Amino acid sequence: MAESGTRSGSEYVRNAWWDTAIIDMAPGEIRFFGYPIEDLIGRLSFTQMIWLMLRGEIPSADQARLLDAALMAGVDHGPQAPSVAIARMAATCGVGLNNAMASAVNVLGDVHGGAGEQCVELILDIAAAIDRGQELESATAGEVARYTAQHGKYIPGYGHRFHPIDPRAPRLMEVVRLAAEDGVISGRYREIGMAIEAELADQSRGKRVPMNIDGATAVIYAELEFPAPLARGLFCLSRSVGILAHAWEQQCQGGRNKGPIPRNELPTYSGPAQRPVPDDV
Amino acid sequence: MAESGTRSGSEYVRNAWWDTAIIDMAPGEIRFFGYPIEDLIGRLSFTQMIWLMLRGEIPSADQARLLDAALMAGVDHGPQAPSVAIARMAATCGVGLNNAMASAVNVLGDVHGGAGEQCVELILDIAAAIDRGQELESATAGEVARYTAQHGKYIPGYGHRFHPIDPRAPRLMEVVRLAAEDGVISGRYREIGMAIEAELADQSRGKRVPMNIDGATAVIYAELEFPAPLARGLFCLSRSVGILAHAWEQQCQGGRNKGPIPRNELPTYSGPAQRPVPDDV
Amino acid sequence: MAESGTRSGSEYVRNAWWDTAIIDMAPGEIRFFGYPIEDLIGRLSFTQMIWLMLRGEIPSADQARLLDAALMAGVDHGPQAPSVAIARMAATCGVGLNNAMASAVNVLGDVHGGAGEQCVELILDIAAAIDRGQELESATAGEVARYTAQHGKYIPGYGHRFHPIDPRAPRLMEVVRLAAEDGVISGRYREIGMAIEAELADQSRGKRVPMNIDGATAVIYAELEFPAPLARGLFCLSRSVGILAHAWEQQCQGGRNKGPIPRNELPTYSGPAQRPVPDDV
Amino acid sequence: MAESGTRSGSEYVRNAWWDTAIIDMAPGEIRFFGYPIEDLIGRLSFTQMIWLMLRGEIPSADQARLLDAALMAGVDHGPQAPSVAIARMAATCGVGLNNAMASAVNVLGDVHGGAGEQCVELILDIAAAIDRGQELESATAGEVARYTAQHGKYIPGYGHRFHPIDPRAPRLMEVVRLAAEDGVISGRYREIGMAIEAELADQSRGKRVPMNIDGATAVIYAELEFPAPLARGLFCLSRSVGILAHAWEQQCQGGRNKGPIPRNELPTYSGPAQRPVPDDV
Repeated sequence: MAESGTRSGSEYVRNAWWDTAIIDMAPGEIRFFGYPIEDLIGRLSFTQMIWLMLRGEIPSADQARLLDAALMAGVDHGPQAPSVAIARMAATCGVGLNNAMASAVNVLGDVHGGAGEQCVELILDIAAAIDRGQELESATAGEVARYTAQHGKYIPGYGHRFHPIDPRAPRLMEVVRLAAEDGVISGRYREIGMAIEAELADQSRGKRVPMNIDGATAVIYAELEFPAPLARGLFCLSRSVGILAHAWEQQCQGGRNKGPIPRNELPTYSGPAQRPVPDDV
Repeated sequence: MAESGTRSGSEYVRNAWWDTAIIDMAPGEIRFFGYPIEDLIGRLSFTQMIWLMLRGEIPSADQARLLDAALMAGVDHGPQAPSVAIARMAATCGVGLNNAMASAVNVLGDVHGGAGEQCVELILDIAAAIDRGQELESATAGEVARYTAQHGKYIPGYGHRFHPIDPRAPRLMEVVRLAAEDGVISGRYREIGMAIEAELADQSRGKRVPMNIDGATAVIYAELEFPAPLARGLFCLSRSVGILAHAWEQQCQGGRNKGPIPRNELPTYSGPAQRPVPDDV
Repeated sequence: MAESGTRSGSEYVRNAWWDTAIIDMAPGEIRFFGYPIEDLIGRLSFTQMIWLMLRGEIPSADQARLLDAALMAGVDHGPQAPSVAIARMAATCGVGLNNAMASAVNVLGDVHGGAGEQCVELILDIAAAIDRGQELESATAGEVARYTAQHGKYIPGYGHRFHPIDPRAPRLMEVVRLAAEDGVISGRYREIGMAIEAELADQSRGKRVPMNIDGATAVIYAELEFPAPLARGLFCLSRSVGILAHAWEQQCQGGRNKGPIPRNELPTYSGPAQRPVPDDV
Repeated sequence: MAESGTRSGSEYVRNAWWDTAIIDMAPGEIRFFGYPIEDLIGRLSFTQMIWLMLRGEIPSADQARLLDAALMAGVDHGPQAPSVAIARMAATCGVGLNNAMASAVNVLGDVHGGAGEQCVELILDIAAAIDRGQELESATAGEVARYTAQHGKYIPGYGHRFHPIDPRAPRLMEVVRLAAEDGVISGRYREIGMAIEAELADQSRGKRVPMNIDGATAVIYAELEFPAPLARGLFCLSRSVGILAHAWEQQCQGGRNKGPIPRNELPTYSGPAQRPVPDDV
């Protein structure tokens, strides 16, 4: 980018402490991975731009449509989710929408936001076992067993404490199936996702532990070749929408310092009974 | 939703402390503003879902395309922006991508993330003055003067400390013009946005203070009838993409506890010279 | 600090973009406002250090004791407070204690954490009116009326939605009285704080709107000559203790994705009934 | 606390979803671990209150003095630290001091804020090996080797990229030595801390890898019997002071959207050269 350096005049210098391949700027110029922003505006959808920013290349419209499905399906699961409750409570504390969003997105950690990432990792581990020569079924059984031994019996992306069947998963998997038929993706990770579900049903003697939204989006992210940690990042973008919507709804409803339970309900207290302060402190 | 209450069985009760029109759930069922999620998946783009979540209705494809332009144009302005620098630094501190995103989105406050919201407010104030019978030009001059008197000479959405002309603004305004021609929007707020630019040029004796991205997206949000505070919220969603991309790039680059400047550079110190602690503390 | 620049050798340079009077460093050397850290350790309490960092000078032991009272009195008000509920919920989401603290401290905004700051401002406004020649009583009535006209009838630092009398306030005010008697402080702002209480009682025809903890700590911060915005900052430090304690207690209790209400309770839904997605989206 | 439940009248009920031993409240009453707040105010220092909140009991004045040293020593290491730079940048973005503190505390993760916690764990592992019958020296060598094998050669709490000798560590260790002499603590973990230093010197053939502040505070937290994760929590409280001080100093200095480097310095760009957008997106 010597040209743009030249063009920007002698007043600008490059500082190597900050180094990026994402964006290049000069006065009057902005390029993302080489594409001038004015050439992208009006042509790329928001979802295509998300892809470009994370991958460095523009996806096809078909790829973007599949990513769309993963992003739009997970925007919200209501105020029972800690992140959404936090957003709503924050909105009544005298902070901006940006702050309410931050406090909420912040808690999308390993437990609340990590299942997609963990499921992509499991899917890729099974794929690697297949690449080493195992059959789908035995690779799946082996890697699920290994996962269980390391992390406990809960398999990320399968089962749901609220939904007997998560209504998002079968529909997302249908979208994945059609994309595979159309040649947009290979369909390989869809098969692995379904094999995990079959393996879990086997283990629990026929009682289904059906794929949930984290499993279905993990299949999509794997099919689209996003690295596992970006499954978490993309979920954060997706859930940010629900977080914003709930913060905004709460702001419109009003309220000051909304707590988690009605004001006439006090937490249970389980500590020591009243006692005097010792004399010698 | 008495039906779903019934369907969910006696084990679920409604708790009125939490009240939302956004999402309704029962085991196996999720509806957003009445639409079953399985009917939305594969049909709505991410951008259409963002609109539905914030407005309660599904936008047309044309409306969504205009929102797409506003969302995709503002994803990033590089590590010179405090939010992006924060995301990159956070990514080297041993926290998750969700945490890096939170620390960064958090600072999109009145100064770093509020220009769009403030510009929508100004545009709506001008529109209200026109509705009270004033001409576009005098309404604009009057409201700009009023804004300046209250908030100082900096008009949000106009001028840029780095770009003589922000390359995103003219292209976005062209997209707006086409949408107005196609009847997607009225074009009224576009005219107001341009009138502000003309007024500022008048004031500075012809030296342009051109519309920047915050002004152009404010025009779009006003045309699409988003309330002003959502201009901030939508910008947070948009910039979250760049924040995530930079956090991820930094994570891939590695580094531990990346500070703002190279490690051999120390801040200037402007405090008292070395002195002894008094004896009597 | 040319000396320390020299001492640190040619490999370190000063970068004027970052400029601080708080800390000066060279390899092997750390000074706070000129005091070498090794001379402070073991001699200053944590509270004295807090004062030094915010004010640039070491407080007397008596001043520190008064600051101690303000800091320790406000550490917690239980999980009904949004900040504490957020800390506890965050602790179950798979994030670190630092992240749980951040999401919680973040919401100590104008409504949840700003009353002390606002009360210091009111107290200083009354003091300024007295300095302009008014009597205590009329200055108080005038400034309270002005505050009410601008901000509504709620006076920060007085009244409590839960406590008829906030048990922290009278005890803190007794500590302030003793400090004034001992000449540690002037006692001027204590009188203003009490005059506000008297004025509010007059307005409500004898029904007390008693000073709460925010009022009492505002009196202390004003007496100790902290600028109003630091009343918020100091409250954030103080409440961080309760936030940490609750996050830690919750972490020890366990739980995954703790929401605000029991899992069998669903939010009330107040949106549209179930409806089909239009064909033309 | 049936009494207080009764006393608070029929309008308050206990909600078992929230359960705490820290605080018990009724209208007009606040107790921490059984101590009425009005009995604590004016008697406990802030540091003693921190201890009570985290441990459930009031520490002796001597114990509090040792905790004071750990808390006050680590308040700040200047704007080269990402957390402090973040606080200063945030303060220029139009957010409150609480928000600036949150964005900054948030990044005190495993790398930036975890060394104390990790060092306590290592110290406790060595103590456990001694309890199983090993000698101090061999237990230390064994556990350091085990740590290195698992986590790499960097031992948390030892060595410093900037200070040849961290001036805080020897002074803190002197305070610890005196406290052990006075019988405030056992001194056992101090010996382990020093044994680690000796072991590291042995490994590097005499070149010292001296204990830093994280090592010295880890010794204190272990001596005072704080669980390892609270070493992180306490560090967050401590560093919050420096974070607040720098955010406040920056706010007083002014500035808008302060980035990490001067405005005429651009990041190095290492991505693709300018290219056209493909026609088929």
